[in-house]
Amino acid sequence: MIAPLQHVLRLSCPDRAGIVAKVAGCLHDHGCNIVDAQQFDDRATDRFFARIQFEQFGAPDAADALRYRFGAIADEFGMEWRLRDRTVAPRVLLLVSRFDHCLADLLFRWRSGELFMQPVGIISNHPAAALERANIGEVPFHHLPVDSANKAQQEAQIRAIMAQTGTELVVLARYMQILSDEMTSDLAGRCINIHHSFLPGFKGARPYHQAHARGVKIIGATAHYVTSDLDEGPIIEQDVERISHRDRPEELIRKGRDIERRVLARAVHYHLDDRVIINGATTVVFPE
Amino acid sequence: MIAPLQHVLRLSCPDRAGIVAKVAGCLHDHGCNIVDAQQFDDRATDRFFARIQFEQFGAPDAADALRYRFGAIADEFGMEWRLRDRTVAPRVLLLVSRFDHCLADLLFRWRSGELFMQPVGIISNHPAAALERANIGEVPFHHLPVDSANKAQQEAQIRAIMAQTGTELVVLARYMQILSDEMTSDLAGRCINIHHSFLPGFKGARPYHQAHARGVKIIGATAHYVTSDLDEGPIIEQDVERISHRDRPEELIRKGRDIERRVLARAVHYHLDDRVIINGATTVVFPE
Amino acid sequence: MIAPLQHVLRLSCPDRAGIVAKVAGCLHDHGCNIVDAQQFDDRATDRFFARIQFEQFGAPDAADALRYRFGAIADEFGMEWRLRDRTVAPRVLLLVSRFDHCLADLLFRWRSGELFMQPVGIISNHPAAALERANIGEVPFHHLPVDSANKAQQEAQIRAIMAQTGTELVVLARYMQILSDEMTSDLAGRCINIHHSFLPGFKGARPYHQAHARGVKIIGATAHYVTSDLDEGPIIEQDVERISHRDRPEELIRKGRDIERRVLARAVHYHLDDRVIINGATTVVFPE
Amino acid sequence: MIAPLQHVLRLSCPDRAGIVAKVAGCLHDHGCNIVDAQQFDDRATDRFFARIQFEQFGAPDAADALRYRFGAIADEFGMEWRLRDRTVAPRVLLLVSRFDHCLADLLFRWRSGELFMQPVGIISNHPAAALERANIGEVPFHHLPVDSANKAQQEAQIRAIMAQTGTELVVLARYMQILSDEMTSDLAGRCINIHHSFLPGFKGARPYHQAHARGVKIIGATAHYVTSDLDEGPIIEQDVERISHRDRPEELIRKGRDIERRVLARAVHYHLDDRVIINGATTVVFPE
Repeated sequence: MIAPLQHVLRLSCPDRAGIVAKVAGCLHDHGCNIVDAQQFDDRATDRFFARIQFEQFGAPDAADALRYRFGAIADEFGMEWRLRDRTVAPRVLLLVSRFDHCLADLLFRWRSGELFMQPVGIISNHPAAALERANIGEVPFHHLPVDSANKAQQEAQIRAIMAQTGTELVVLARYMQILSDEMTSDLAGRCINIHHSFLPGFKGARPYHQAHARGVKIIGATAHYVTSDLDEGPIIEQDVERISHRDRPEELIRKGRDIERRVLARAVHYHLDDRVIINGATTVVFPE
Repeated sequence: MIAPLQHVLRLSCPDRAGIVAKVAGCLHDHGCNIVDAQQFDDRATDRFFARIQFEQFGAPDAADALRYRFGAIADEFGMEWRLRDRTVAPRVLLLVSRFDHCLADLLFRWRSGELFMQPVGIISNHPAAALERANIGEVPFHHLPVDSANKAQQEAQIRAIMAQTGTELVVLARYMQILSDEMTSDLAGRCINIHHSFLPGFKGARPYHQAHARGVKIIGATAHYVTSDLDEGPIIEQDVERISHRDRPEELIRKGRDIERRVLARAVHYHLDDRVIINGATTVVFPE
Repeated sequence: MIAPLQHVLRLSCPDRAGIVAKVAGCLHDHGCNIVDAQQFDDRATDRFFARIQFEQFGAPDAADALRYRFGAIADEFGMEWRLRDRTVAPRVLLLVSRFDHCLADLLFRWRSGELFMQPVGIISNHPAAALERANIGEVPFHHLPVDSANKAQQEAQIRAIMAQTGTELVVLARYMQILSDEMTSDLAGRCINIHHSFLPGFKGARPYHQAHARGVKIIGATAHYVTSDLDEGPIIEQDVERISHRDRPEELIRKGRDIERRVLARAVHYHLDDRVIINGATTVVFPE
Repeated sequence: MIAPLQHVLRLSCPDRAGIVAKVAGCLHDHGCNIVDAQQFDDRATDRFFARIQFEQFGAPDAADALRYRFGAIADEFGMEWRLRDRTVAPRVLLLVSRFDHCLADLLFRWRSGELFMQPVGIISNHPAAALERANIGEVPFHHLPVDSANKAQQEAQIRAIMAQTGTELVVLARYMQILSDEMTSDLAGRCINIHHSFLPGFKGARPYHQAHARGVKIIGATAHYVTSDLDEGPIIEQDVERISHRDRPEELIRKGRDIERRVLARAVHYHLDDRVIINGATTVVFPE
């Protein structure tokens, strides 16, 4: 007996009666069994969002037939959609500067099988020697220094690496450089950044120092899609930790590292597992 | 234009291909628009669970037609199911002893429109005067003292009140009496208790004193369906709070009250909104 | 045998060698036994903060002798300080508008012995009938409507009530009116407000709508001392709750109520138990 | 100008009037300035606990004079105490089996300067090749296989390594072997284990499978001192994470790894920073 194909379908479209019936019927007709389905109707915008995970039994070309037939339904309902084979690890490019705790964490989770991805490269504006705590191992490393003079050129190098590797997702794992508007525009919906504050509080530089000065009792971190509007992209995941008056900025930075790495890891995992759909300035995140 | 009917359908059955297609098709055929749908396949037991919230447009008897047709599908798939009108407040009976913080909280949430229910009565083994902090107001109060001698008789009185009021859910809001096996058996799946510990830790009496003696750093509370096996019923909701070595049992009791009342309120809300389906010794809880 | 006096001493002063030795020696000389002591040195400002809870054995005038002697030490070190009898409930004035969940909660905690205070009055810009869910009971209620024309006069009435009742703390329990600069200045350090957002995010009006529009994944509430700079006063306590894309502003408001009431209750409790000392734009809060 | 000595003093003794005055006076007499002080009186056992962090100005032998004089006070009050130079990194021995996420995490925190310690060795009952995800680097690795036949001998090897390296703390970073009673007795108060459940729930083997079967809504991890009574040692730190019915045991194991590593890292940090004092079956943990 051959194993069934493992699919995940992610879609959004204007809300209308009969979507679920049509999609479920199509899947059933093509020998598919739904394993997990979640949907959301945004009553404010009358938009429908769904994630459907299913198995397909049948001949090897069954997926093509399904894709063809589903395309017609998607056209009918005006869907934005993606149908993906869950057994293929998405290709991910990791960008980092001097703080490598998020990078080290993502690599550990990847090696332990927790994060299903294929890291196609690590790019840093600092040399590899600056990342001594992370276990880079066999992942190709690219040292691409950047300053105001060579920014366009450096971004062209990043694009070239993306093209060569077939990068599907770019992760800014504490990459402390601001991407150009053109770059963020091209990467819309496929570039995740970790910001070291509980946005929208403490945008911009040195958020832990800002948090200390304001005397908040809880700090946090925010993973979001990158847009040209700095620290304003759609939020994917946030988490927080309680602090006290005893914590100086240095302690906040230390405690914050723990939050940053787990928030970023979750956001990357949700994205790679097709659980995130952008909804205007916000996101729909279907929980595990 | 008339407003659509508001339904919620809760179902579980052995997993099988085509359930979603069949249900969604049926709803579509009867002029229904799905507002929210969640499902879960338990791969361990091969059982399927779903909650579907939908609007139905049509003549007043449209709901009857749907119910009739859906009954046939339910039989075909061996479903346990419930289809309910969301605009009718479920009838709830509240049992309490001396600690009235959960009772006061549930009544406040009901009056503020947060908890959609109809409290049909309050039963206590203590007189109303013992509940001076709760705002009982117009809710009928029954003082039913209980001891080892009159337990059967007192439970018969509770059953009589349930029958007269058409009680759909019994909430043990810190009711410090153990129900008989016969009573718990009759109330299976429609009686929620709040236990003042993070189960399965600290079962039985005086859990905060147990927690203090063991030196845990976090305490919690657990809302669960009542079964004849004390503190072992299917868990609906839990929550926790951090404590320290400074907290004596009295402080734990005080801090615990906050946890107990929000855990119980959430569990009651989830149940009344048909978000909870029992799955053996556990529950499926579809999130809001 | 007579019970010992129960004191709590709260102090702050420029940091200097020998403070603890001097204070502890003084207490020891006056027959005092320290029950709990916490201190904090702010290295950034070189300021010392302490809270010392102690019992004093001796004749009834022992407290006077201690207070006299301690005053000299306080002068020597340039201390701001307060020595208080812990057995006397502080007098608290509660201000509220239409949303009475925080008021109801504070009153419940007071009646259950959880919050040690004496509520000397409730002031609302709405009539008592608007607060039907709270159990006002015997607490004097004052309906003081306010608009742009009578604001100065209404605040004068509040001041009169404060003077008559010997109010020590004013709590804005969702009082949706902005106090005048003169009023906030007079109430510096003895007026606590609950803001329904995780400050500094979402200042100003309708924070839950702002949070929904921004798509945050966690919401919160903030209790802070009132200053003339709106939503910028020193933060005493904050807490948060996870939300999802399913939550519309109405659900955020409902979920937020739970956070608001527990954050405000904690802040009031910390203040009344002399655990909070203002440190510039922030606070030192000595934990229980 | 020479930098002051950095000390931390940890003590416990029967509660008695005048302890703080005596200790603070002694420190003042020896040119010490208290930087942070926390104390706790356990009213149940009438025992006093304190942690005092202070700087000492003076000649190099000032510390000896202080230690000599303080010893006399300690004798007078029957203190258990430890006075330590905070600038010397404690020597730590790490034991691990196949799951290396906690080991990798501790090493990362050590290298990033977050965890102030000196790892003197890693011992595993599996070969180094099994720990491929952790960055062992220059830390000496010892492969000490163990089975029922060679247990005594293997523990003798561990003791030998401890003696050679001057080990001050042993960390069981998911070391899946049960130590002998003799070993746990010798290591009392200086051996920390991470248990992958929210104790006292789910003791023993396969706690995530137990948690799944019981249907809890929150899972956790517990760091505790090792005693001969398995999973019953004094708890240092715990933390939790919310789960849902969708999480199978494999997901719990994955999510649990995050909790385990941060709980263990915190417990080790608290211990190494002399913040933990054992109090019978529980611990006093002075917060940062």
